[in-house]
Amino acid sequence: MKALRIPEATVTRLSIYSRFLERLEQRGITTVSSSEIAKGVGVSPAQVRKDLAYFGEFGTRGVGYNVKDLIHYILKILGLTRPWNVILVGAGNLGTALCTYRGFIDRGFNIVGVFDNDLTKIGKRIHDLEVLPLERMPEVIEQHDVKIAIIAVPLGSVQDIADQLVGHSLKALLTFGPVVVDVPGDVVVRNVDLAVKLEILTFNLVFKELHSII
Amino acid sequence: MKALRIPEATVTRLSIYSRFLERLEQRGITTVSSSEIAKGVGVSPAQVRKDLAYFGEFGTRGVGYNVKDLIHYILKILGLTRPWNVILVGAGNLGTALCTYRGFIDRGFNIVGVFDNDLTKIGKRIHDLEVLPLERMPEVIEQHDVKIAIIAVPLGSVQDIADQLVGHSLKALLTFGPVVVDVPGDVVVRNVDLAVKLEILTFNLVFKELHSII
Repeated sequence: MKALRIPEATVTRLSIYSRFLERLEQRGITTVSSSEIAKGVGVSPAQVRKDLAYFGEFGTRGVGYNVKDLIHYILKILGLTRPWNVILVGAGNLGTALCTYRGFIDRGFNIVGVFDNDLTKIGKRIHDLEVLPLERMPEVIEQHDVKIAIIAVPLGSVQDIADQLVGHSLKALLTFGPVVVDVPGDVVVRNVDLAVKLEILTFNLVFKELHSII
Repeated sequence: MKALRIPEATVTRLSIYSRFLERLEQRGITTVSSSEIAKGVGVSPAQVRKDLAYFGEFGTRGVGYNVKDLIHYILKILGLTRPWNVILVGAGNLGTALCTYRGFIDRGFNIVGVFDNDLTKIGKRIHDLEVLPLERMPEVIEQHDVKIAIIAVPLGSVQDIADQLVGHSLKALLTFGPVVVDVPGDVVVRNVDLAVKLEILTFNLVFKELHSII
């Protein structure tokens, strides 16, 4: 089987489609058209059909998609039909906020360990987790079969922590803020840059001003 | 002039291209091809050319783009050739982390006011800002010509805060977590759902496993 190249934007949209579909399901809606999905999330109907077509044939012409089936199928593609244990490195304000972030729990991500090298933070409790020293990472990773780590440490320490996590055989890392980390080719790193979303806002503000002048 | 419909994914990629270009500029690189930009950010060269083509003619065939000019042009499109004053509602862990988030400062976003309705937080200092009660929002918005607000309050209070901000004439709101807010049509709302990025990681983990089995 030839490895299919799926655009990352498609994967991101699948995440977003599934959230929209779950809201429909909660309202008792059982079928949906690609146009309705498109309208609900702000893309074109052709885009919805193209994204889903990467993964096979869905839906019935003139009837649309079965909401429940489509949710299940997308979650399967995204690897979300099982829960994932995650560790968090960094118990500062961001790390503390992430520990209780509802969006992780809703999607089946369980934070099973929080680590820091700051002696004033080690031993502190965040929600129902005790902040542990970095040396305890291998033990928790093995015990909970952890594959994913979230790095929420100051920018200057991100590469060092990433190196340690790669050394402990983790293959998927999430970082925050304006930072680029070097990892081996078999490790996936994604970065959350919160300013990107603010820039969509400024684009809209400026673009609107421009068009109201002309 | 007909209002051009720019896909949001294009705007997001422009943000990302500009970050990559700034790193090139810091390394003293003066020209770049669409293929190099594409490789640096993980999209196709055709995508880079298409995204830039929305905004006119750039670059010289066979020579590429002037890095400095392209950065300036993209920042202009995104509305980032001027600084933006922003207020933050919610002085919990997330709000506190956002106050010192380097990625905002780097891109010209200045948080000029932090607000909360929790009496134990009001009066507290975060970095060089004092947490103010919600009633002080109109005064700070007017004084600093604020157009953008970040909402970092518990999910159950997001709609109420959004309503208040819309009442104070703000036109651009950023929210966090699994929440959908209702606002008038002339208000732009964008949402940061941190789980979306984790789902790109799980997709990659599962997809890789699948292809190593087959």
